[in-house]
Amino acid sequence: MIDDDKPHEECGVFGAWNVADAAAITALGLHALQHRGQEATGIVTHDGVRFHSHKGLGLVGDNYGDAKVMAGLPGPRAIGHNRYATTGDTVLRNVQPLFAEFEFGGFAVGHNGNLTNAHTLRKALTRRGCLFQSTMDSEVFVHLIAISLYSNVVDRLIDAIKQVIGAYSLVALTNEHLIGVRDPLGVRPLVLGKLSGADGKAGWVLSSESCGLDIVGAEFVRDVEPGEIVLIDDSGVQSIKPFTPQKPRFCVFEYIYFARPDSLMEGNSVYSARKKIGAQLAMEAPAEADVVVPVPDSGVPAAMGFAEASGINFELGIIRNHYVGRTFIEPTDQIRHLGVRLKHSANRAMIEGKRVVLVDDSIVRGTTSKKIVEMVRQAGAKEVHMRIAGPPTTHSCFYGIDTPERGKLLAARNSVDEMAKLIGVDSLSFITIDGLYKALGKPGRDALSPAFCDACFTGDYPIALTDNNEARDTQPSLLAEMS
Amino acid sequence: MIDDDKPHEECGVFGAWNVADAAAITALGLHALQHRGQEATGIVTHDGVRFHSHKGLGLVGDNYGDAKVMAGLPGPRAIGHNRYATTGDTVLRNVQPLFAEFEFGGFAVGHNGNLTNAHTLRKALTRRGCLFQSTMDSEVFVHLIAISLYSNVVDRLIDAIKQVIGAYSLVALTNEHLIGVRDPLGVRPLVLGKLSGADGKAGWVLSSESCGLDIVGAEFVRDVEPGEIVLIDDSGVQSIKPFTPQKPRFCVFEYIYFARPDSLMEGNSVYSARKKIGAQLAMEAPAEADVVVPVPDSGVPAAMGFAEASGINFELGIIRNHYVGRTFIEPTDQIRHLGVRLKHSANRAMIEGKRVVLVDDSIVRGTTSKKIVEMVRQAGAKEVHMRIAGPPTTHSCFYGIDTPERGKLLAARNSVDEMAKLIGVDSLSFITIDGLYKALGKPGRDALSPAFCDACFTGDYPIALTDNNEARDTQPSLLAEMS
Amino acid sequence: MIDDDKPHEECGVFGAWNVADAAAITALGLHALQHRGQEATGIVTHDGVRFHSHKGLGLVGDNYGDAKVMAGLPGPRAIGHNRYATTGDTVLRNVQPLFAEFEFGGFAVGHNGNLTNAHTLRKALTRRGCLFQSTMDSEVFVHLIAISLYSNVVDRLIDAIKQVIGAYSLVALTNEHLIGVRDPLGVRPLVLGKLSGADGKAGWVLSSESCGLDIVGAEFVRDVEPGEIVLIDDSGVQSIKPFTPQKPRFCVFEYIYFARPDSLMEGNSVYSARKKIGAQLAMEAPAEADVVVPVPDSGVPAAMGFAEASGINFELGIIRNHYVGRTFIEPTDQIRHLGVRLKHSANRAMIEGKRVVLVDDSIVRGTTSKKIVEMVRQAGAKEVHMRIAGPPTTHSCFYGIDTPERGKLLAARNSVDEMAKLIGVDSLSFITIDGLYKALGKPGRDALSPAFCDACFTGDYPIALTDNNEARDTQPSLLAEMS
Amino acid sequence: MIDDDKPHEECGVFGAWNVADAAAITALGLHALQHRGQEATGIVTHDGVRFHSHKGLGLVGDNYGDAKVMAGLPGPRAIGHNRYATTGDTVLRNVQPLFAEFEFGGFAVGHNGNLTNAHTLRKALTRRGCLFQSTMDSEVFVHLIAISLYSNVVDRLIDAIKQVIGAYSLVALTNEHLIGVRDPLGVRPLVLGKLSGADGKAGWVLSSESCGLDIVGAEFVRDVEPGEIVLIDDSGVQSIKPFTPQKPRFCVFEYIYFARPDSLMEGNSVYSARKKIGAQLAMEAPAEADVVVPVPDSGVPAAMGFAEASGINFELGIIRNHYVGRTFIEPTDQIRHLGVRLKHSANRAMIEGKRVVLVDDSIVRGTTSKKIVEMVRQAGAKEVHMRIAGPPTTHSCFYGIDTPERGKLLAARNSVDEMAKLIGVDSLSFITIDGLYKALGKPGRDALSPAFCDACFTGDYPIALTDNNEARDTQPSLLAEMS
Repeated sequence: MIDDDKPHEECGVFGAWNVADAAAITALGLHALQHRGQEATGIVTHDGVRFHSHKGLGLVGDNYGDAKVMAGLPGPRAIGHNRYATTGDTVLRNVQPLFAEFEFGGFAVGHNGNLTNAHTLRKALTRRGCLFQSTMDSEVFVHLIAISLYSNVVDRLIDAIKQVIGAYSLVALTNEHLIGVRDPLGVRPLVLGKLSGADGKAGWVLSSESCGLDIVGAEFVRDVEPGEIVLIDDSGVQSIKPFTPQKPRFCVFEYIYFARPDSLMEGNSVYSARKKIGAQLAMEAPAEADVVVPVPDSGVPAAMGFAEASGINFELGIIRNHYVGRTFIEPTDQIRHLGVRLKHSANRAMIEGKRVVLVDDSIVRGTTSKKIVEMVRQAGAKEVHMRIAGPPTTHSCFYGIDTPERGKLLAARNSVDEMAKLIGVDSLSFITIDGLYKALGKPGRDALSPAFCDACFTGDYPIALTDNNEARDTQPSLLAEMS
Repeated sequence: MIDDDKPHEECGVFGAWNVADAAAITALGLHALQHRGQEATGIVTHDGVRFHSHKGLGLVGDNYGDAKVMAGLPGPRAIGHNRYATTGDTVLRNVQPLFAEFEFGGFAVGHNGNLTNAHTLRKALTRRGCLFQSTMDSEVFVHLIAISLYSNVVDRLIDAIKQVIGAYSLVALTNEHLIGVRDPLGVRPLVLGKLSGADGKAGWVLSSESCGLDIVGAEFVRDVEPGEIVLIDDSGVQSIKPFTPQKPRFCVFEYIYFARPDSLMEGNSVYSARKKIGAQLAMEAPAEADVVVPVPDSGVPAAMGFAEASGINFELGIIRNHYVGRTFIEPTDQIRHLGVRLKHSANRAMIEGKRVVLVDDSIVRGTTSKKIVEMVRQAGAKEVHMRIAGPPTTHSCFYGIDTPERGKLLAARNSVDEMAKLIGVDSLSFITIDGLYKALGKPGRDALSPAFCDACFTGDYPIALTDNNEARDTQPSLLAEMS
Repeated sequence: MIDDDKPHEECGVFGAWNVADAAAITALGLHALQHRGQEATGIVTHDGVRFHSHKGLGLVGDNYGDAKVMAGLPGPRAIGHNRYATTGDTVLRNVQPLFAEFEFGGFAVGHNGNLTNAHTLRKALTRRGCLFQSTMDSEVFVHLIAISLYSNVVDRLIDAIKQVIGAYSLVALTNEHLIGVRDPLGVRPLVLGKLSGADGKAGWVLSSESCGLDIVGAEFVRDVEPGEIVLIDDSGVQSIKPFTPQKPRFCVFEYIYFARPDSLMEGNSVYSARKKIGAQLAMEAPAEADVVVPVPDSGVPAAMGFAEASGINFELGIIRNHYVGRTFIEPTDQIRHLGVRLKHSANRAMIEGKRVVLVDDSIVRGTTSKKIVEMVRQAGAKEVHMRIAGPPTTHSCFYGIDTPERGKLLAARNSVDEMAKLIGVDSLSFITIDGLYKALGKPGRDALSPAFCDACFTGDYPIALTDNNEARDTQPSLLAEMS
Repeated sequence: MIDDDKPHEECGVFGAWNVADAAAITALGLHALQHRGQEATGIVTHDGVRFHSHKGLGLVGDNYGDAKVMAGLPGPRAIGHNRYATTGDTVLRNVQPLFAEFEFGGFAVGHNGNLTNAHTLRKALTRRGCLFQSTMDSEVFVHLIAISLYSNVVDRLIDAIKQVIGAYSLVALTNEHLIGVRDPLGVRPLVLGKLSGADGKAGWVLSSESCGLDIVGAEFVRDVEPGEIVLIDDSGVQSIKPFTPQKPRFCVFEYIYFARPDSLMEGNSVYSARKKIGAQLAMEAPAEADVVVPVPDSGVPAAMGFAEASGINFELGIIRNHYVGRTFIEPTDQIRHLGVRLKHSANRAMIEGKRVVLVDDSIVRGTTSKKIVEMVRQAGAKEVHMRIAGPPTTHSCFYGIDTPERGKLLAARNSVDEMAKLIGVDSLSFITIDGLYKALGKPGRDALSPAFCDACFTGDYPIALTDNNEARDTQPSLLAEMS
């Protein structure tokens, strides 16, 4: 069901403070963030006295459509989480938010991102007598907070985040605060919004993307800043900045593919950014063609930008089938031989006899691209030119995006010409890294101090890969747990 | 989950003869036809000796992704069905194909459409001692065949279809043939395709739409003709035409909304037809505006046509959320008050401060249109002009489309001006009926002999509404059956 | 889960007229009759205007414990059914009661027993144009009623039962009556009880056994008589006797094994009958032993009778484990080698070093007996003597009891001595057929006119085996239906 | 489904070392121990390299009947657990065995019993930074082991059990050992058995009761002694006794009700013990009566002993219905009014007109006893005399048995005469505490040093109730977790 030829965002987070039906508001926010994780979801609420929790596998709509579930989540405060996870890994105990009972009260936390020293910290904590119940990075936060010697939960949280290294946005809920945190470089997004509250006072929401604010009618206030802790209670929003300021390195791939087109990132429309990237691509890598066809759905805005800039007609030459079941038809040999495509079909009338420019946002393994090109050729295309709205993906991400190991990245092992041949196109071009920066309003990439995290394109990793430098040989002993 | 502000197609059918893995081929065909019915699905296969069957609720992918199900459906011959049904009605015994055991062998049948004298026939058959097990029209066919005095199954089928009145396309499987039938006016679609067969000889497929042929790599041969029976066996395709020829009246709404854009209907690209309708609409009802925004997904081609013809920019100003769970979040009062929209969100950056032309294909009850306009205004649109790529829907359909009763059709009770006010737009226009015919390549509507069935727009019902003229008071006695 | 070394009753029926919460009363009656069928259950109610139905797989308690199910079964009239069925056969469409819509109203029917000319009738009806939807014998009744030319439903029912041959007790519900029927020989049981009604007038219940009356607090009125139709409505109970009277032949195995010990059959306590059979067995086949041990649970009363008559101590030397899951532990080779017994365990302290008399009610295949003897020997028994409270089972039953085909009946192929050797006992004896009749208060078996149906012991089949004399080659064409 | 008028055992444990298919052997052992807990079950295995785990709600047979589950539990070493739990508490994270990953390897543990200072220890551990993931007492063990400063896992375990106070039997599995532990007073049972091992060397099993050895064909070796740790590996069984020896206080209620009748406890047959208790009861409290009737199933052996000693006939005057669904029929008012009994029915023929002695093992709330007496009277009993095979239950248990709080114990608030009146019997007697000790082979109860824990009858609690002396006000903050 999940396209393994796209990178995948690992998780979306949402939080609400002082709003009526906080669980329902959070469920809606998570629904808007569903593209950031579809395997599992959880919400923890606080009703002023106690915490309440639901975790479940599957989509937001499937979990919170059950009135009994919602009735079990009372209170005006909540945090929620959507989880993306690789197969086999999604047992309930790994579903966030994680909840812990401290001496001084409860603490619930969910995060989007990845700690690059989680494994190292986990080993040290285990040696100290800490018992881990899950394989989630979040649990490292929780243990660090549990053993911190500070008396105050906020001081303990600062103590904890100073020990972790990584790219993360987190939301947490204590007996007294809703908390949002972004990592020092601000690699992963987190925005703050305002809402009319439950009692006349202000209500507040945190969301991975601004589309989570729109769905609940919240007003966009600002991005949580890189390295900032926002501490929300009935007196308002307090900002704490425990780190030495650094130049931010926001994830450029959020612009290219991850974020929803209707979201704002760093104040910019993602949809417009994609159209501009398409236009820049048309200038850098024009094609003699009759029609510009997007690979749906993510390639559509870039293709529109390409079409406008090049003057070539834009047509929906590929149709996407949105009805995909939970399990799905296992192709037999016969069917595999037929080259069956379950998610895409060619709109033959727009393709037959034409020179086609296919616009997509990225090529990871190249498997899907190859099948789509085949399909377009079978539908009668005279020529197929592929244009990619991002530079070649040559490196894996360790900051919260699920990419294959480097050896499986098509661009890591092949030149663009070789890739064109493998995918079966008449021509193939990627936007340049400088072109990408320009489309995003920068003068180009400043190699000494780039404006974005672009490690997947450049191999320039701005955050230390601590765990990666040790062998990850010590697998957990407990294997298959069925629940 | 189902938008009750759109008409709904009642069912898609598929058949396969002499192809390896006929059940898998049929499952794929049904997957491509999923938009014609999402509530339930069934496949019957024949392995040369016996029939095998699976029926299940839910999507095609959910049913046939189970290897055990597929293993239970052997053989090179199959028919399949996707069912759309109103709530509460979908118990397994009502899922097609229907299978019956006759003296001379088994008979499986599935149909798309509606019999307008089903109720009348059912009463007569019951009086005669026939026992009905379902509320499906198909069962009327089956009883008519069962009691026919002809000795041959094909003669019995002809005997049966001569007694029924209605709009239907059906596929049937006997011990000896795959059969396809279209009603005398050809209101509902059915196409024939060819495939390399299981044994070197030709393989054949039948499908409600040509997109069902494309997914399995079958070559489009032709539409089954109105009033035609195609009888398929290893000797090829035999055509029987038991009815006096009439001028066809294909359903015009298939062009406007139902069919997949990549399908061909009567040899025409549905996608191109929609763009032409949009262009015609722009000529008939221009608007002073900054941006043309489609209501996704069905309004997109018409909006593209409108934008091209009018020269106004086309932008994706509304984003559709494709992640919708089986159950879904029940809005609380608080949430209802916020005007939450689960399926659509405004792409504010494309709308704020702009004069927007919203293009949609139809208005049924008007409830969704009203919410979308509200959303677009909240996102800052300066003006909202709505343009509809079909004439006002003033009459219910009795030919296989689920429309509300007439009293609930917005256009049946209100003038266009009143509708504009109710929906909250600055202007509202529908394409004219003549404009629609012109966009579809006709000189306009010939009132004496129209080229299409357009009863939903004109009230001109080309097939007798027999049941409708009797009171439908005799409800079945058995109510809630849970299974 | 089902012991395949016992015969199995095929079904229990219950009916209620004019009682508050008829569905709940019926559910309770079916719960008391659960031993007569555990695979599926159904209830049809009538609320004065309409019929309502629920069918489900599994136990009575699992189905009617759901408040929503009960809410869907309103009305003061109901019939219900428990189904026993061989594996694979239990799809919902085969679950009774069967409901049909006739011209003159609805008709629901459930039966216990077997028609011996069902197959022959089914073929004739199919030839006539009747469509069968299930493989249930009950459907034959329903079609016969549907095509009967009598205008009155009771006359049609008489018309139908005069055409069927077999052993059956049935309950039916029409818009106007609750009906109970027993076959002309009264092979299968059915009793009538009285209850305070919903409105001051009398309420009535029908039940396969009197234990179904006890659980709902109904007063036992009488057995429905062989060949009798009882027609119940608010004016009371009307008796119709459409058959020429014959000497009854009640199933003797109901006394030995099937019926619940607290039921009355023909006015006799089943528990007392079993004790008397055990006492007679002790006189006919004494054993030198230290302890009498029943094979639980069905062997207990006979063992008590044996112990009392012989003066040997009665001890619970075998313990039965009542916790058996739906699925069950699949023994691996290792476990099979250990001779593991999941349902029984030896109470070693009562067996070790002792000469044991094991008392059981029947030996069918002998597989379970062999394992139990092995277990008793492993627990240290010095000698094992087996005594069986029924004659050797040498013939299959065609009257509603699931027995293996004759070739698999241990007693059909082996002498008692051979059986003793195969089962591994020091001695083996069965009660004689005359002894059995004596224990049941008869002077012995009158070969010309026996008081019971004892075909399984004697091969004397009192009802014609019509279907059996034709080859049953014409299998239904539709095989595996998954639902 | 669970009789709330009986005390309930809280859990059964099983362990296996060096046996082929250890998971299957453990599943069988747990099946034999099913009466000690029916809500949930878990097994952890070790395959020499890794641990594997399954936890599930429901019966043993339902969980381990799934071949996929068993395939996921490889290896020759295993421990397993059956859980009894009060409603609402059974979420998967509370199902044992509990598994933890220590620095030095994995550790799995399951226990039967209750720690009386668990709450106190939990608070201290939380203060120290330990995070609890469940509400299970076992987790206290695990944290104590995790933070122990000893380097060796066995030393850490000793360190841990010296800090806990309570009545418990536990089984544990490490990378190197199977471990069994009984509390210093030996309140809860645990036995050791021997089996032919996987590789010619000995195999070992631990089980709460000896019936767990019988089912897998293991030879009974001995009881694990009070306060003993048995350490099992391929070199055999090593015994460690870390506590100062104390006089054992085995739970006397295991004899009266909990244990399976075929188990040996302290070398004695439980079945024989119950018969002796019944005989003693007959001597202490004779009754003029016609028939002795047990309340099935647990009252049967005591009733047999009573009948033998008194010379009154023993009859199965009450029949138990063993078919009880997961959910169950919710009685409506009408049904409640009828006094319906779902689990028991009177065998009227044995009761009508008779003076009946009802023998049961205990009265807790008295609710079930009252209903049974009512039922027996409705079936026509002339007199009803109740005899109870245990002294009056006047105190709650804190050592692993689920009893109601004291205020709800009938005997805590009423004299025997009052109880007789409330229950509706003509006479009521309980065995004396001295009579009970005598029936169990003791000279009577030595008040200074009783041979058993009999706190539920005497209020003499042999183990400190540490938690009970503090207010248990600090409830966990996280309430309803749905999974």
